[in-house]
Parts: sequence; C-alpha cells; structure tokens
Amino acid sequence: MRIILIGATGTIGKAVAKELGQRHEIVTAGRTSGDLIMDITDTASIRNAFKKAGKFDAVISCAGHVKWAPFPEFTTEDYEFGLKDKLMGQVNLVLIGSEYINDGGSFTLSSGVTDHDPIPMGSSASMVACALSGFVMAAALEMPRGQRLNVVSPGVIEEAMENYGAFFRGHCPVPAARAALGYAKSVEGLQTGQTMRIVF
Amino acid sequence: MRIILIGATGTIGKAVAKELGQRHEIVTAGRTSGDLIMDITDTASIRNAFKKAGKFDAVISCAGHVKWAPFPEFTTEDYEFGLKDKLMGQVNLVLIGSEYINDGGSFTLSSGVTDHDPIPMGSSASMVACALSGFVMAAALEMPRGQRLNVVSPGVIEEAMENYGAFFRGHCPVPAARAALGYAKSVEGLQTGQTMRIVF
Ligand SMILES: NC(=O)c1ccc[n+]([C@@H]2O[C@H](COP(=O)([O-])OP(=O)(O)OC[C@H]3O[C@@H](n4cnc5c(N)ncnc54)[C@H](OP(=O)(O)O)[C@@H]3O)[C@@H](O)[C@H]2O)c1
Ligand SMILES: NC(=O)c1ccc[n+]([C@@H]2O[C@H](COP(=O)([O-])OP(=O)(O)OC[C@H]3O[C@@H](n4cnc5c(N)ncnc54)[C@H](OP(=O)(O)O)[C@@H]3O)[C@@H](O)[C@H]2O)c1
Repeated sequence: MRIILIGATGTIGKAVAKELGQRHEIVTAGRTSGDLIMDITDTASIRNAFKKAGKFDAVISCAGHVKWAPFPEFTTEDYEFGLKDKLMGQVNLVLIGSEYINDGGSFTLSSGVTDHDPIPMGSSASMVACALSGFVMAAALEMPRGQRLNVVSPGVIEEAMENYGAFFRGHCPVPAARAALGYAKSVEGLQTGQTMRIVF
Repeated sequence: MRIILIGATGTIGKAVAKELGQRHEIVTAGRTSGDLIMDITDTASIRNAFKKAGKFDAVISCAGHVKWAPFPEFTTEDYEFGLKDKLMGQVNLVLIGSEYINDGGSFTLSSGVTDHDPIPMGSSASMVACALSGFVMAAALEMPRGQRLNVVSPGVIEEAMENYGAFFRGHCPVPAARAALGYAKSVEGLQTGQTMRIVF
C-alpha cells in the first residue's frame, strides 16, 4: 500500500512509520517537513497536498493539538482552538482526502485516552477525543467507494512522559511501538467506525 | 430551587417545565420568547441574561441545532455550524453560568441517542453528542463551588416523530415526559459528569 502519514516526525508518527514502513510505502507529511507539506488546520493546504500526492491507499494522522487548563480558567477561544486543530483538522483530512483516496482506502485518526479517562486540565482533550469517536462511528457508515475510517486512542506515550507525565499521574505509559500497532490494525485490518484503544 | 430553563417552548423543554415546575420555580429562557431572552450561540447574550436572572440554582438547556446530510455531502462549514451551536452554545452556558450560579448549583445539557447509535446523515449529530459527553465527563471534575454538570441523551421524542421519524427508522420513540425525568434526575439527584441516556 501507499500510505500518507501526517505527523511523521512526531513521537507516535515515527513509530508508525517504522511499523508500517516494513511492509508499505510511506509518504511523509507535516506542517514544516516531509514529502508533502500540509497544515491540517488549513483546508486549502490539505487539498493541495492530496492533489500533489498521486494515488494512495491510506491516510494516517498523528497530529493535532488542544489547549490544557483547569476548567475555571478555560475560555471559549481555548475550546475553539482544539475544535479547529485536532478535531476539524483531522475531520477535514477525511472530508477532502475521501475525494482523492483509492477505492477501499482507509483513514486512521488520533485521539487519546482522555476519551474515557479524564485528567486534570483535560476538558478540551476529552471533548475533542470523544467528538472524534462519534464522528468516526457515524461517518464510517457513509464513506463512499468502500472507504474505511477509524480512530486510534493511545494512552500517554512512554517516550513523551517527560512532557506529559505531570498531566497523566497514575496512567501506565504505552511504548510508541505498541501504539503503532493500533494504526497497523486500522490500516491492514477490516474494521471501520472503531475507536481503537491502546492502553495498558 | 430556582431553575433557568433554556428552550422552554420546545418539545422537550415543555415537558421539563411541566415535570420540574411542580416542585420548583422555572425561569424560562429562549431566543425569541421567555422570562429571559438569550441566544446560546452569542456569548454576550448569555452573559446578559445570567446577569439579569438574579440568584439561581440550576441551568437546564433544551436547545441546540446541528446540520444533517450524508457524509459525502457534508462540508467543513456544516460541521462547524453544529460545533458553534449545539456544542459551544451549551458549553458557553456552563462556562459563563458557572460564574453566576449559586454554590452547589447544577448544569444539565442535551445531546441525543446518536452518541452511541449512529443514524444516516447524522455524522455531525454523533460528533456533537459525543463531544458533549466528553466535555461533561471531564469538566464536571473541575467545577468550582460544588457545582455539578450532566448531559441528558434522549432517544427520538414521540411528540417529534412527525419531523424526525424519517431519520430514526427502527428507533423506539421516547415520550417527552419520560425524557423530562432525566433532567429531573440530573437537577434533583447528586450525580455529576454523567451522560444520562433515556432510551427505550
Ligand atoms: N504523545 C502522547 O503521549 C499522546 C498520547 C495519546 C494521543 N496523542 C495524540 O497523538 C497525536 C500525535 O501526538 P505526538 O505526541 O506524536 O505529537 P508530536 O510529537 O507533537 O508530533 C506532532 C507531529 O504532527 C505534525 N504536526 C503538528 N501540527 C500539524 C499541523 N497543523 N498540520 C500537519 N502536521 C502537523 C508535526 O510536524 P511539524 O513539527 O512539522 O509541525 C509532528 O510531525 C496528537 O493528536 C496527540 O494528541 C499523543
Ligand atoms: N426532539 C427530539 O426528538 C430530540 C431527541 C434527542 C435530543 N434532542 C435535543 O434536545 C434539544 C431540544 O430539542 P427539541 O426537539 O425539544 O427542540 P425544539 O422543539 O426545536 O425547541 C428548541 C427550543 O430551544 C430554543 N432555542 C433554539 N435555538 C436557541 C438558541 N440559539 N438560543 C436559545 N434558545 C434556543 C427554542 O426557542 P426559540 O423558538 O425562541 O428559538 C425552543 O424553545 C436539542 O438539542 C435536540 O437536538 C431532541
């Protein structure tokens, strides 16, 4: 398969490239580097990159940001940031990519463990992760040309504990290579509409 | 208790007013009519109404719209409509209302059965309903001054089958009076962070 991997230089993206690169052609994409330059928060940039990409069979997104703050300090704009970036950025990858991907192609997005296990300062993270699950569950049923759609929901990643450990006290970290298997299952398996939880 | 009920003239809102009006003071609020005029899609209008409201112990939202279309016909703007209206409209009720509500007060929002049971044309409905569940689950843990926060997720309402029946084939409709009990449980009970599913 020919797979477009957005966020290929990130903690999870690198592990996904390693896992799937053993068996498939990986076309890397990112905001600042990669075979394709693409900013998921900009629909014109997404379309441009897919147009340039040529034929492809799968899109994997390992990108997306939200804001973190205690609820009483959150603003409307903080929530809107996450909705525009991690939620609609990834939804737009599907909306636009769906026009360009091969018949039977798959989309695999990224959410996170806050979809069912809330953490301090994580009300936007939980909102966005659950929104991705709901979108995937419903849109998967209506994808054209046999396309599939899943979201991988990894626990906090071992290699990222230096940055995220303080947010995820008591969580058992997941090695990036383990999380990468969730993306492989989505791309190489048959499931659709699923939230694939990778937690220990 | 003194309860602000947004969407009091709607199918569900009317039944909620009837159920809780037996035991509590209901302050009605809506975009075009009510004791308070408030448009949940406009943060200034929300703040204005809460300022005018005087002391209150509970906020119930029976309002919020999303767009409906088959996935291949959905646009970015269609999803953004639901995120601004039904999702952020209700989230902003909590963000702003939290400053004004009495200690120990409660917020009760509305989602719907598409949070776990997707329907044709419902990818935005599922996205928004799940986002509300995720937000409520996480933000409830951080509410100030003993405030509580839940979302009621009713099945399609019997009294609305003329409008919604064609979308919800095979769903067993729920009488509005039955759905109203979910709002009563949220307001008069002790739970917080819950999605209260009212389905038959
Ligand atoms: N790390 C964790 O513990 C963890 C756990 C669960 C879920 N997740 C989720 O998994 C995803 C990846 O996380 P990560 O920690 O691997 O991320 P990361 O290390 O911060 O890397 C992010 C990657 O995405 C790219 N990127 C960032 N913004 C982009 C944009 N607007 N358009 C296109 N590409 C963009 C970056 O490229 P540039 O440098 O060029 O911007 C980079 O390659 C995120 O959604 C994250 O929330 C992470
Ligand atoms: N009906 C169902 O079968 C069903 C099932 C599950 C969930 N739900 C959800 O439950 C909620 C209520 O549904 P419903 O069918 O009872 O609604 P409805 O009959 O359409 O009534 C909506 C109510 O909300 C008010 N409203 C609309 N937009 C508003 C805004 N921007 N700001 C403030 N108030 C606004 C309306 O007042 P104005 O007329 O003044 O605008 C009206 O009182 C919605 O979120 C809906 O998605 C409905």
